Amino acid sequence: MSDKPLKVALLGCGVVGSQVVKLMREQAGDLAARIGAPLELAGVAVRKLGRKRDVEIDPALVTTDAEGLVARDDVDIVVEVIGGIEPARSLIVSALSGGKSVVTANKALLAEDGATLFEAARQGNGDLYYEASVAGAIPLLRPLRESLAGDHVKRVLGIVNGTTNYILDKMDSTGASFTDALEEAQSLGYAEADPTADVEGFDAAAKAAILASLAFHSRVTAAEVHREGITEITATDVASAKAMGYVIKLLAICAKSDDGRSIGVRVHPAMIPRTHPLAGVREAYNAVFVEAESAGQLMFYGKGAGGAPTASAVLGDIVAVARNRRAGTRGPDESTYADLPVHEMGATVTRCHVALDVADKPGVLARVAEEFAQHDVSIQTVRQEGHGDDAQLVIVTHQATDAALTATMAGLRELDIVRAVASVMRVEGD
Amino acid sequence: MSDKPLKVALLGCGVVGSQVVKLMREQAGDLAARIGAPLELAGVAVRKLGRKRDVEIDPALVTTDAEGLVARDDVDIVVEVIGGIEPARSLIVSALSGGKSVVTANKALLAEDGATLFEAARQGNGDLYYEASVAGAIPLLRPLRESLAGDHVKRVLGIVNGTTNYILDKMDSTGASFTDALEEAQSLGYAEADPTADVEGFDAAAKAAILASLAFHSRVTAAEVHREGITEITATDVASAKAMGYVIKLLAICAKSDDGRSIGVRVHPAMIPRTHPLAGVREAYNAVFVEAESAGQLMFYGKGAGGAPTASAVLGDIVAVARNRRAGTRGPDESTYADLPVHEMGATVTRCHVALDVADKPGVLARVAEEFAQHDVSIQTVRQEGHGDDAQLVIVTHQATDAALTATMAGLRELDIVRAVASVMRVEGD
Repeated sequence: MSDKPLKVALLGCGVVGSQVVKLMREQAGDLAARIGAPLELAGVAVRKLGRKRDVEIDPALVTTDAEGLVARDDVDIVVEVIGGIEPARSLIVSALSGGKSVVTANKALLAEDGATLFEAARQGNGDLYYEASVAGAIPLLRPLRESLAGDHVKRVLGIVNGTTNYILDKMDSTGASFTDALEEAQSLGYAEADPTADVEGFDAAAKAAILASLAFHSRVTAAEVHREGITEITATDVASAKAMGYVIKLLAICAKSDDGRSIGVRVHPAMIPRTHPLAGVREAYNAVFVEAESAGQLMFYGKGAGGAPTASAVLGDIVAVARNRRAGTRGPDESTYADLPVHEMGATVTRCHVALDVADKPGVLARVAEEFAQHDVSIQTVRQEGHGDDAQLVIVTHQATDAALTATMAGLRELDIVRAVASVMRVEGD
Repeated sequence: MSDKPLKVALLGCGVVGSQVVKLMREQAGDLAARIGAPLELAGVAVRKLGRKRDVEIDPALVTTDAEGLVARDDVDIVVEVIGGIEPARSLIVSALSGGKSVVTANKALLAEDGATLFEAARQGNGDLYYEASVAGAIPLLRPLRESLAGDHVKRVLGIVNGTTNYILDKMDSTGASFTDALEEAQSLGYAEADPTADVEGFDAAAKAAILASLAFHSRVTAAEVHREGITEITATDVASAKAMGYVIKLLAICAKSDDGRSIGVRVHPAMIPRTHPLAGVREAYNAVFVEAESAGQLMFYGKGAGGAPTASAVLGDIVAVARNRRAGTRGPDESTYADLPVHEMGATVTRCHVALDVADKPGVLARVAEEFAQHDVSIQTVRQEGHGDDAQLVIVTHQATDAALTATMAGLRELDIVRAVASVMRVEGD
C-alpha cells in the first residue's frame, strides 16, 4: 500500500456528485485497499457557492473555477458529472490533455462528440471511463468492451430509459393514458418537469449511440440514431398489444445488417412478446439484452438512474483508472477498427403490427393483402375484429425492410376501403 | 499493430477447447485488431493423439507433452480447459511461475486451491483470468471484480448450475418427478450419465466459493460452502410451492452477516416468489442476482454452459491478458484484504416453509406454535389443509437462524401430535 494519495477533482456536485463524495468518504478504507493507495478529494467545482448540498464538503475545497481545478498539477483523476455539452467538453479535453484520467457519466457529450474526447485521452496518455453513462449502475459497458472482446455481438436490445419504462409499465398495468402515467411519473420524481429528453427518446438515442459504438467497434453519434418517442402511444395501443400477448416498451436497438457491412441504430416503441426476458422489466428499471455469436443471449438488469446507483458506477471507474495510474498503464482505447457505417432506418429489417379501420364488405381483405404484396411484405397473421363501421383488420407482418413497411402504410392510406390506419407498431424480440 | 504474434498454448481439446481453436481461427482478424497483435496457436496438449475432434488442427501442433508445451519459452498465454485438480494445477502453476499468463475455466481447482494459483501469478508477474469458471458466457466475474469495485456487495443469489435448473424447471412446468426430469435432462445432454456433481450441488458449491471470494474480498474454498442437492425434492414439494406462488430453484447464496464480520456461503434448494427476477430463469439458463449497497439490485442472465458460450468467455479473457502483456502490465490481483471468515450454516439467517402431518384435533396448533416460540422462531403464516388423517399444517416462518429452525424441526418431530414433518424448504428472495 502506497501512502501517496491519488487526488480526485469533482466537476459538479448535484445528485450524483454528492453521492460520489459521500461514498468516497464512507468507503475510504475499502477503496484504498482495492486501489493500493488512498483517494483524496482535491476539490469540487460548482456553479454557485454556498448552495445547500446533500453532503457536507469543506468550503476550502469548493470552487467555481472548474478550469483552474482541472489544470492543477496535483490532480490525478477528474470526475465529470455536470452533464451537457459545454463546459463539460472543454473541461474534459483540458483534463485529458493535461495527462489526467477522466471518469464521466455524460452520455449526451459522448454520443455527440466522443471522438474529440477519445483523441484527447490518447494524446494525454490517460484513461476515459464512462460506465455510468448508460444504464446507471448496471455493469454493461465493461462487459461489452472487455468480456465480449472475443465474441461477435449481433444485436443489442435494451430498455435504457427508466422514465419511459415507468410510464409504459403504468399504462400496461393500470390502463392509464400516456398523460396520466406521465403525471404520476412526474409526481414521483421519475420524470422531469420538462420530460422531452426522455419521452421523445433523446436520452435513449444517446445511449444507443454509445452501445452501438462499443458493440460494433465503430463510431456512432446520436445524430445517426433513428429516434421515435412514446407520446403518441394510446391506452388502446397498449390494451391491444396486451390482448395479443405483447407489451409495448421503448427499445434501443443496435443490430448488424445481414451482410455484416453496416449497422442499424434506432430508438422507438415496439411490441415484444410477454415471454421475452425484457417484458418482465418493470417500473423504472433498465435492462439490456445482448445477442452474441458464441455467448448466445445475455441480459443485464438493474437500476438505470438515481444518485447512488450512478455513483456506484462512477466509483467503480475511479477504482479502475486509479489502479491503471498506479500500474503506469491505461485501459483499452476506443475501438473503431471495424468502422461500419450506420444505414438508414429504411434499410432496417423489422416487423409490424397494423390496425386498419376498414369497410365491412367482401373483397376488402383481398385488396389489403394485395397492397402488402405489392411492396413485397408478407403477412404472418390477419384477424378481423368488429363489424360494420367498427370493422378492423389487425395484421402482423413477417420481416421486411422499414422502407417497404412505410411504403405499404402509405399505400393503405390511399385505399378507399381503408377508412384509417388506426395504429402501426413495430414488433421485436421474437 | 505489431507483427509479433502472441502465442497461445491450449491445454485440453474437448468441447470447450475445440471451440476456442475454432473461434481463434475464424475471428483472427478481429482479435488481432482488438489486441493490437495477432494471436497464434503454439500448441495443443491432449491426453491421446489421433482422437477425432470437433475442429481440425495441424498434427504438428498437437502433443501429449503438456508440461513441455507449458515450459516453452515462446508461449505467452496458456489456456487450461482440462478441468479437475491434477494435472491442471501443476500445469497452471508451472505456466505462471514461468512468467506466462493463464486463462482457465477450472472452477473446481479455483475453489479448492485458488490461493496456490494466485500466488504463482503474483510471483511470475502474469495474469490469472477465469471468467468462464462461473456461469459460462455471462460476464459476471469482471463486473464483480471491477465494475462494483467502488461499491459494497451485500448478497449474491444465483442460479449457477444449468442441469439442476433444467430439472427443476421441468418438474415445475410438467409436474414430473425428479427421476423422470433427470432422465429427460440426460437424454438431451443437459445432464451427465453420472449426475452427482450437478444434482448434489458440488458444481454450484465451487462456483459459490469463487463468487463469495470476489464479492467479499476474502478467500473462500469449496469445503467451506454448506451444500445440499436436489435429489430429495418431490413432485409434491414443487406443486405445493407452486400453489403458494413460489418456485423451487437450486440457489447459490453468498451473504454478509448483519454485523458485517463474517459471510455465509451455501448451496441448497429454496422456494422463491414467482415475482422474483430469478423465478423466470427457465431451462438450462443461469442468472445471478447481486444486491449492492449503492447499485441496488442487479441481475446477470445467460447461458451457463456449453462449448461456444464458455469459449466466448475464454476468448474475452485471452484478449484481456494479451492486451495486458502488450502494455507490460497485469490485471487486478486477487483481492482478499477484507479476510472475512465463513460462518457455520447454523448462524445463517433464513426462513422456512414447513408442512406437518398432524392429528386433527383441538390444541394442535397451539402446541405446534409453542414449539416454534421455544426456539425463538416466529411464524408468518399458518394454514391447515385436509382433515382427519390427511390433516396438514403448512407454516411459513419469519427470519431466524438456521440453527434455530433446525432445532425447531427436531422438536416438532418429537411431538406426538405431529405424525411427520412432511417437508421443510428454505424460503429466499423476498
